[in-house]
Amino acid sequence: MTSKAFQDFYPDDLSHCYGCGRLNPDGLQIKSRWEGEEAVCTFAPRPYHTAIPGYVYGGLIASLIDCHSTGTASAAAYREAGREMGTEPALRFLTAALHVNYLKPTPIDAPLEIRATVKEVKGRKVVIASRLVAAGQVCATGEVVAVQVPEDLMPGKS
Amino acid sequence: MTSKAFQDFYPDDLSHCYGCGRLNPDGLQIKSRWEGEEAVCTFAPRPYHTAIPGYVYGGLIASLIDCHSTGTASAAAYREAGREMGTEPALRFLTAALHVNYLKPTPIDAPLEIRATVKEVKGRKVVIASRLVAAGQVCATGEVVAVQVPEDLMPGKS
Repeated sequence: MTSKAFQDFYPDDLSHCYGCGRLNPDGLQIKSRWEGEEAVCTFAPRPYHTAIPGYVYGGLIASLIDCHSTGTASAAAYREAGREMGTEPALRFLTAALHVNYLKPTPIDAPLEIRATVKEVKGRKVVIASRLVAAGQVCATGEVVAVQVPEDLMPGKS
Repeated sequence: MTSKAFQDFYPDDLSHCYGCGRLNPDGLQIKSRWEGEEAVCTFAPRPYHTAIPGYVYGGLIASLIDCHSTGTASAAAYREAGREMGTEPALRFLTAALHVNYLKPTPIDAPLEIRATVKEVKGRKVVIASRLVAAGQVCATGEVVAVQVPEDLMPGKS
């Protein structure tokens, strides 16, 4: 049995994101889980996610790093607060800054594994570092500064 | 009559990118053009490009900035070389580094305009700065370090 992913704990009205929302049928629906101190997400690129033939386009890599990192930020914030994921009030994060270094072309015919670590949890801000591994090689690294969604942007909370 | 976009000059075998390839029917097919010293791309987000309801997910913004910037890098390199776009050998760019600052939530029901300027052209490297404007407000800024595609990755050139 596979454990629930971070994204499976998001409230329904925060589960429509193209990258990570389980209720977005057109989206990527990524799933992130702890493996010890790292959060891991695996994604199989689709044939149309191409850049130059044979390789994944950079926007997908950025999207995966982005959503995996905000999910990891959420999980880290719950952990920091000593709370179970999914308990109210929801701790959900948006991206303030995203940085991706593309180290080498990423093959499109291999699963992409994004492994993230929590660099900092400070107030409403969480910083996540990550690397994308494909076919045994680190093809990209990422850093995301995530901030907790302000109350006035939380759906149904006005 | 609308002028040809940067992407319309890409050779067929470099036109399959999900973000900017005119031959990728599943992709975004962005179009970039000079407006004086700025390169401009306008994109209408689709309803499923949501983050939290009403707003565009960050991965789309990163993808648009990424592909618009590599297209602008290509156009800038042709200009720097005093060559017409589309002439051989093709000058095509990949992203080495992508940085996006998300300044405020980007509305999903407005056209997104990405305006880019060339910060540097040096050898095979071009640096592009950009900002994303929606509903009259700058919602994100970007910086891309683009490098010319190495010969061994150019399709059909081996």
